[in-house]
Amino acid sequence: MKHFKKIRIEMIVEEAVAEAMIEQIQDAGAKGYTQIHDVSGSGNRGVRLGDPVSGVGGNVQLIVVADAAIAETIIEEGHRLLEHYAGIIMSSEVEVLRDEHF
Amino acid sequence: MKHFKKIRIEMIVEEAVAEAMIEQIQDAGAKGYTQIHDVSGSGNRGVRLGDPVSGVGGNVQLIVVADAAIAETIIEEGHRLLEHYAGIIMSSEVEVLRDEHF
Amino acid sequence: MKHFKKIRIEMIVEEAVAEAMIEQIQDAGAKGYTQIHDVSGSGNRGVRLGDPVSGVGGNVQLIVVADAAIAETIIEEGHRLLEHYAGIIMSSEVEVLRDEHF
Repeated sequence: MKHFKKIRIEMIVEEAVAEAMIEQIQDAGAKGYTQIHDVSGSGNRGVRLGDPVSGVGGNVQLIVVADAAIAETIIEEGHRLLEHYAGIIMSSEVEVLRDEHF
Repeated sequence: MKHFKKIRIEMIVEEAVAEAMIEQIQDAGAKGYTQIHDVSGSGNRGVRLGDPVSGVGGNVQLIVVADAAIAETIIEEGHRLLEHYAGIIMSSEVEVLRDEHF
Repeated sequence: MKHFKKIRIEMIVEEAVAEAMIEQIQDAGAKGYTQIHDVSGSGNRGVRLGDPVSGVGGNVQLIVVADAAIAETIIEEGHRLLEHYAGIIMSSEVEVLRDEHF
């Protein structure tokens, strides 16, 4: 079957910025997103493990699959949002079968 | 060290279809799969956040690494299973060292 | 904006080896890592679902983004650590905007 090329964006960001990030993902025109919650780790602003009791300070992983132009908007706007928060954004090419879903 | 090319399949699917999806992954000949549970998001069938109390209606992320031919079977059969469920399937090339494990 | 190529390493490993794995990731020079906890699945050492009550025997997903040379060290040392544990390691190319963060 025919495969279509899309961009997969993966973000690991502070929970505090997740809502604003999802809003800009949707504003950019992505048709969906995935959020994975139970995420810890360390990164460029020091160790960030989250508080195991309150959950405050944790991270989330956001995954978005979109066309290249929409993806570029999400990546650039995402970095603007991360100016005051910890987080990383990476992108890579993936293939999908249902072109119209992304 | 020598790296071998494989296909990484990533699915975000309704929990209700996860068991059937894992069965078809194994039937196709994949030697393993990974399931990540605490997944929410929105997609092509409307917002799907899962019920935070009952857990009903949530999503899971499934990750499979396999040879190209097995991967194609999993992707095509996966789409047949998703005809009546929300979910996305994407694939991309990855490299592994232990060829015999996949 | 300019994108920089990095290597994304993804590991699904037994929780018992996660701490040693994170240590070698940091020793190799990676500037960060991400750990996702609620992971089950089956693989090359038989079904490994984890004990739902005690959490013992579960798996974690580790994600690292690094330069190619550091990534190769992490992948090779990672396989040495996995000699006595269940787990898989895969790698793929990703793009990032902030070269200095990885």
